[in-house]
Amino acid sequence: MARIKIAAYDLLEKIREEKPVVHHLTNWVTIYDCANIVKALGGSPVMAHAKEEVAQMADIASSLVLNIGTLTVDFVEAMKIAGSSANRKGIPVILDVCGAGATGLRDQKCFELLDEVKIDIIKGNSSEIARVSGESVRTKGVDAAKVNKNMVELARGLAKKRKCTVVVTGKEDIVAGEEKLYIVKNGSPMMTHVVGTGCMSTSVIGAFAAVERDLAYAAASGLVCFEVAAECAAKLSSGPGTFKEKLFDCIYRLDKKTVNKMQKVEAW
Amino acid sequence: MARIKIAAYDLLEKIREEKPVVHHLTNWVTIYDCANIVKALGGSPVMAHAKEEVAQMADIASSLVLNIGTLTVDFVEAMKIAGSSANRKGIPVILDVCGAGATGLRDQKCFELLDEVKIDIIKGNSSEIARVSGESVRTKGVDAAKVNKNMVELARGLAKKRKCTVVVTGKEDIVAGEEKLYIVKNGSPMMTHVVGTGCMSTSVIGAFAAVERDLAYAAASGLVCFEVAAECAAKLSSGPGTFKEKLFDCIYRLDKKTVNKMQKVEAW
Amino acid sequence: MARIKIAAYDLLEKIREEKPVVHHLTNWVTIYDCANIVKALGGSPVMAHAKEEVAQMADIASSLVLNIGTLTVDFVEAMKIAGSSANRKGIPVILDVCGAGATGLRDQKCFELLDEVKIDIIKGNSSEIARVSGESVRTKGVDAAKVNKNMVELARGLAKKRKCTVVVTGKEDIVAGEEKLYIVKNGSPMMTHVVGTGCMSTSVIGAFAAVERDLAYAAASGLVCFEVAAECAAKLSSGPGTFKEKLFDCIYRLDKKTVNKMQKVEAW
Repeated sequence: MARIKIAAYDLLEKIREEKPVVHHLTNWVTIYDCANIVKALGGSPVMAHAKEEVAQMADIASSLVLNIGTLTVDFVEAMKIAGSSANRKGIPVILDVCGAGATGLRDQKCFELLDEVKIDIIKGNSSEIARVSGESVRTKGVDAAKVNKNMVELARGLAKKRKCTVVVTGKEDIVAGEEKLYIVKNGSPMMTHVVGTGCMSTSVIGAFAAVERDLAYAAASGLVCFEVAAECAAKLSSGPGTFKEKLFDCIYRLDKKTVNKMQKVEAW
Repeated sequence: MARIKIAAYDLLEKIREEKPVVHHLTNWVTIYDCANIVKALGGSPVMAHAKEEVAQMADIASSLVLNIGTLTVDFVEAMKIAGSSANRKGIPVILDVCGAGATGLRDQKCFELLDEVKIDIIKGNSSEIARVSGESVRTKGVDAAKVNKNMVELARGLAKKRKCTVVVTGKEDIVAGEEKLYIVKNGSPMMTHVVGTGCMSTSVIGAFAAVERDLAYAAASGLVCFEVAAECAAKLSSGPGTFKEKLFDCIYRLDKKTVNKMQKVEAW
Repeated sequence: MARIKIAAYDLLEKIREEKPVVHHLTNWVTIYDCANIVKALGGSPVMAHAKEEVAQMADIASSLVLNIGTLTVDFVEAMKIAGSSANRKGIPVILDVCGAGATGLRDQKCFELLDEVKIDIIKGNSSEIARVSGESVRTKGVDAAKVNKNMVELARGLAKKRKCTVVVTGKEDIVAGEEKLYIVKNGSPMMTHVVGTGCMSTSVIGAFAAVERDLAYAAASGLVCFEVAAECAAKLSSGPGTFKEKLFDCIYRLDKKTVNKMQKVEAW
């Protein structure tokens, strides 16, 4: 592993110029924040879940974000329709396996989505990704549980098995493409004291994947920008409430110099 | 068109005194903000969508706000029941045609609502209103697309055809009653960098329509107050995150002098 | 009634250490705030409502919060399944009777939940609790209506009848256990200008009930901590927008000295 610099800011600039539509079928807890973070980046979020319109909406989008945080059986059916539409159009599909391992329904629906839709980026915390990799982890709700495994190896294995990019968020984020591997070491502990930073990072990855075909690179760039902004926001805040608002300010105002200077990325 | 002053603040004061119940069937992305802006104005928001209770809830309300942002077939059925109840009681019904033109489902359901319920105020951005007027615009998600038409004429035509008030939001807002026409030139560019300002403005119009029978005047007054507050908030903020919070502060603290001094309204 | 000091902070510290999972089936308006306040306290919120997984999710939780704010018939069925699972496991079930008295559906579903699930804490504003006690109050949406009754007597009566703890929030909060009675006199008028403070206080009670078996004591302690934080936040804010953000900061930073010094509790 070697410390490298990536041109993450250039992709952010591309989002600001192209304003890609990022279609979401996401969770009802953080749906506003998912939309708002894409907007703050300069993209155009759209949240539509009716099974009668998701295919058409995915068809006008540049990427599709799925998040099973508050799944129901019907909602996952709509995700499959949207996902198939996205696959036909050739836009990237990002799946946040939020809460995988917490219940049988979540496990079953994750595997159905992975089997029936071509998922381009799988994203979760360590215990969620372990579960999706086939480990018998029991997660405690939506927060990460302990995993006695080398997560880098697990992520690389899953990326190869599913022919996709795998993102494991945590203190250090792992981005495993079929070939490339990035470790992103940015971020702030304050992110763990606010609901929605995980879901937002998935939406950020969705926005970056909308403007860059190298999906591992797009995901790493998105995480760099999001987490550099989080570090800036943490410095300006006195707790999780003000941190959250400052995060949107900092994403919106993020500039090239800051991203280049503050990024901490390793690649292999 | 002539620059005029309207007594927008007097209606805001009436909301603060009467605390009208504003019933919403709105979109799941911005539902919190829709409720919170009505609360910040001094009104009493209620969000209820079960088809078994919407008629009764509309019956204790002073206005009804419908927003198809995250529509489903069932949800629109509940909107029709609530709308019919509101029509029977004689309270104003406001419809935000959020995302009209993006999918066939949205177009179909907009027209069904307009045909089956007496809608008193139709509200959208330029491409949404163009679509509802029968133009063949294809909108890109929920953000406005370009329209090669004179929007004032389109809005006036739709107001006459549907015997209602039509509100087109944008850099300059158009409020077209069957007779009257207002242009509101307040607002801040920062409003376009935050998700929910469009939906919130619909809820604001709903609150103003709850206390004033001249609906074009109510809508123009609501937009003036909301957008003057937005201008104040923009001055106090360093980005979209802090702007959003300051917006609620500024709405809550809005006073007569500020509204009278800062408003930019033209009428015809 | 005598002024007393309770060790409310000790329970908050226990939440921070144990990080209990608080499972919610709550309302779609305030779902984010309900999750975020539990997170700010140090707990682990989980929001899952699919009838196929609620029993299993309740089974990994330490308390269950139900809130009928945006109920539907199906949603209440899921609440019953989750509630039965919580009852079997022996974790406390808290029910926010949000909007009881506003429609027939709400009344009916409240009584069904109370009859079919063992509810450990019933929480509402004065008119909601009056309605659930059998009084013929007609509430105006979700804000409290006038009740011509001694609320302490009503709350005590309901607690005895339903063998549970009853919490009535308002300018002074009443916490009536089967034996004990607490009055909490903390809080700020600013709480009434923001949507969600009522729902959040229910989630706070849920988090405190997750770590303390004496439920009246847990509820009183949760209200003390939440409302002391609200008083601190009000001092730092210029309106409801900034108040809301500061509230999360203040909850997160709350310390023993502040809680002990500022609390205003009476007991009987």
